Amino acid sequence: MSNAVQQSLDYLFRPSSIALAGITVANPDHWTRVFLDALTAFEFDRPLYLVNPRGGEINGRKVYTSMADIPDSVEYVISTVSAPAAPGLIMECARKGVRAVHFCTSGFSETGEEEGIKLQNKLVELSRQTGIRIIGPNCMGVYCPESRVSFNPEFPRESGSVAYISQSGGNTAILVRDAGLRGVRFRKVMSYGNACDLNESDFLEYLATDPDTKIIAMYIEGVRDGMRFRKALEKAAREKTLVLLKGGATEGGARATASHTGALAGSQRTWNALCKQLNIIGVDTLPELADVLVALEFMSIPEGRNVALLGGGGGPSVLITDQFERYGLKVPRLPEDIRLKIREYSQAAGNMLRNPIDYGQNMWEAGKFSKTLNIVNRWADVDFITIYLGAGMMPPEMMPMMAGLIQEVLELTRDASKPLAMVFVPSIVPREADVAFPIIKKLVSLKCPVFYSFEGAAKAISAVLSHDGQRLARLRA
Amino acid sequence: MSNAVQQSLDYLFRPSSIALAGITVANPDHWTRVFLDALTAFEFDRPLYLVNPRGGEINGRKVYTSMADIPDSVEYVISTVSAPAAPGLIMECARKGVRAVHFCTSGFSETGEEEGIKLQNKLVELSRQTGIRIIGPNCMGVYCPESRVSFNPEFPRESGSVAYISQSGGNTAILVRDAGLRGVRFRKVMSYGNACDLNESDFLEYLATDPDTKIIAMYIEGVRDGMRFRKALEKAAREKTLVLLKGGATEGGARATASHTGALAGSQRTWNALCKQLNIIGVDTLPELADVLVALEFMSIPEGRNVALLGGGGGPSVLITDQFERYGLKVPRLPEDIRLKIREYSQAAGNMLRNPIDYGQNMWEAGKFSKTLNIVNRWADVDFITIYLGAGMMPPEMMPMMAGLIQEVLELTRDASKPLAMVFVPSIVPREADVAFPIIKKLVSLKCPVFYSFEGAAKAISAVLSHDGQRLARLRA
Repeated sequence: MSNAVQQSLDYLFRPSSIALAGITVANPDHWTRVFLDALTAFEFDRPLYLVNPRGGEINGRKVYTSMADIPDSVEYVISTVSAPAAPGLIMECARKGVRAVHFCTSGFSETGEEEGIKLQNKLVELSRQTGIRIIGPNCMGVYCPESRVSFNPEFPRESGSVAYISQSGGNTAILVRDAGLRGVRFRKVMSYGNACDLNESDFLEYLATDPDTKIIAMYIEGVRDGMRFRKALEKAAREKTLVLLKGGATEGGARATASHTGALAGSQRTWNALCKQLNIIGVDTLPELADVLVALEFMSIPEGRNVALLGGGGGPSVLITDQFERYGLKVPRLPEDIRLKIREYSQAAGNMLRNPIDYGQNMWEAGKFSKTLNIVNRWADVDFITIYLGAGMMPPEMMPMMAGLIQEVLELTRDASKPLAMVFVPSIVPREADVAFPIIKKLVSLKCPVFYSFEGAAKAISAVLSHDGQRLARLRA
Repeated sequence: MSNAVQQSLDYLFRPSSIALAGITVANPDHWTRVFLDALTAFEFDRPLYLVNPRGGEINGRKVYTSMADIPDSVEYVISTVSAPAAPGLIMECARKGVRAVHFCTSGFSETGEEEGIKLQNKLVELSRQTGIRIIGPNCMGVYCPESRVSFNPEFPRESGSVAYISQSGGNTAILVRDAGLRGVRFRKVMSYGNACDLNESDFLEYLATDPDTKIIAMYIEGVRDGMRFRKALEKAAREKTLVLLKGGATEGGARATASHTGALAGSQRTWNALCKQLNIIGVDTLPELADVLVALEFMSIPEGRNVALLGGGGGPSVLITDQFERYGLKVPRLPEDIRLKIREYSQAAGNMLRNPIDYGQNMWEAGKFSKTLNIVNRWADVDFITIYLGAGMMPPEMMPMMAGLIQEVLELTRDASKPLAMVFVPSIVPREADVAFPIIKKLVSLKCPVFYSFEGAAKAISAVLSHDGQRLARLRA
């Protein structure tokens, strides 16, 4: 794809005008209303048209009975018309000079049924004839906060440096939401479903040269053109950090992707080899993908794998150590001189003055905790610090005391010479979530990388370290 | 240990009288008050005495100034006296005819400091001299709801069939709480810390013949006598289902256990081999331990590894399939005749009528959902059904509609010929937890095995299947 064509994908992420074709007029809770709700919530500030053959009005906005009815030109159409009506819409759009149509609706090749496959083939044919580019079908389309485009009214309004291309609308919503709660912000997100016209390679080639994108996250079920995609990955991996979640990695999963987006999946082994070769961070689950994004966004990359662990509770301290070492991180012995420094103002009983430093009861004294953090921060043999706390490790009524601790963490992260990660185990119990969630939000607002589990933190930090090691080795080679 | 001695450990779990030695009189929020709070909350109905040299009164209860002061005999003492006062307390208890003392306080060999090690050695010496058995030091002791003994006022009041011996008080509280939220109930729980006298082998030998215990869960950091423990495991594994979380499995973790309970850890490889040989279910984390207990308690063991997956969302459907197959479960193709039966009343668009059966929009119609469940339930080639739903997969305002679904699940689990598992992804966001948590509680009250993640369900169900397969093979051999 030439550079000129790449540039042209810009309009998908910041269309000069949008028409919502197929929006339901009568029922404000109907699913087809989600795009209007989202664009309204995001205060979309360019022309926006609603189209439904029945006409009428929604929130004081005129509903046009056809595309032809719209008085001005339209660049981009989001379609919620039923699958059988999709080809007709393309022809209407062609007459209107529309550049691209996002078909949200399902009922195409992913059904595995003849009718759906035929309909999708028809879309491809019409796209080639008319020059109109198609996103989808069977997907949620674009989220680009800086241009005020979203398919979900709840998504963050702020823009970030992460791009995300995903074949699944659900997995897009889940990641944007979960990573979003932890402070990750997105630049350009594309849920592209069946990829009958524009596909993963188009988006990847475009994002590889996008100046505002630093990280490209991907949920890929299958690719249309393996050779082209490999080249696109290779190029993008030179410019950006790539994180890949391959859906349909197993035999059953591959069958599922065929049914979900009609994609051909490829074996897990092939994908693993590709990730290794191109230094792409491969993950297996959405929580892992969010963890890696958090590590990449909020943790300065440690110079090595040695960690000082600092937290509460003897048993949890043992288990976090096991998890960190299982994922290839190292928890070195605390030198005696450092131990003695901490011992000066800490009692031995109820504390483990080693590494992990289970700081037991003393943890709750802000002065002592900050003193210990400062001492550990000057320990030359460790590359980063991880603090672990959370629900289940303390009674809920003690959680408000966490406020003081957060202050310490803030002070530490501001002056710290060493990278810091926080494991804060959240709670799903309402009365505890009421206390724990604001603490997580506070930590996130301080740009602290927050992980929800020992394993999640260990796996993500290890993956980012491996990625960075390979990057540096290549730079040196 | 002879059978007579084994019987004698009964009194630890149902003491005829308890004295709380070292309880603070002045400050009701002091940590030493937790045992009184817990015994009060559990309505402990045998004689309970409070002891502190300063005397006084707590909630209308007399505080005796010494053990000698107590007018009646005392069987069991829970001590929160400081470490240096512990030897003196044993002598007082000996004069009183006490059978066992649980030393909660830390400051012994786990500190790695000479003074603490000496103090612990002194306790062992006095235990041998006086015949008083010691639990601990550095632990939380007994939780046995049927005898109204607990160290935590929040623990469930109901008794179950799971025993749990744990070297960490924190890891005891976390497991009882987290497994408890999912319906698991405990028979006899022992947090035994440094194990200077009574140790893992004593408790395991006792529990192996305990008629009310079906499952024995263990958090073990290290063992005193490897040969004896191995024999105890062997014997217990013949009688009960054993689940083992080994703390300190890694090099750093082993160093941490030395510092936590002074235990010698042994290598991960040794422990893995032991688990395999004795058909013990080995786990690496507390959430995994809870998952396995949930599977053992609430899921009839499937006859094989073939699963029908039924849930919401195309992307999540692909990912749960991958996770199930990664852990050795099989997601077989849906036969065409079954697909056509479901197709009769379901549209193809927005649904994946394969396996996984992403039931998309149709899922929200209770009638159709129950119909599909019934059809799948008659599918001869699958051994169990897993339904997946939860926060992130739907807007919070849609969650109340889950009520209808739960009704279906209830109906299904009542008449089902196939075992059923539920993955319900919870939320940590307060307004969502307010809706999601009651749904989880409802499912739990219906005796439904609830897992919080795709991976958690897959790993636990696979582990239980492997365990059962080995058990059956041994029975046949």
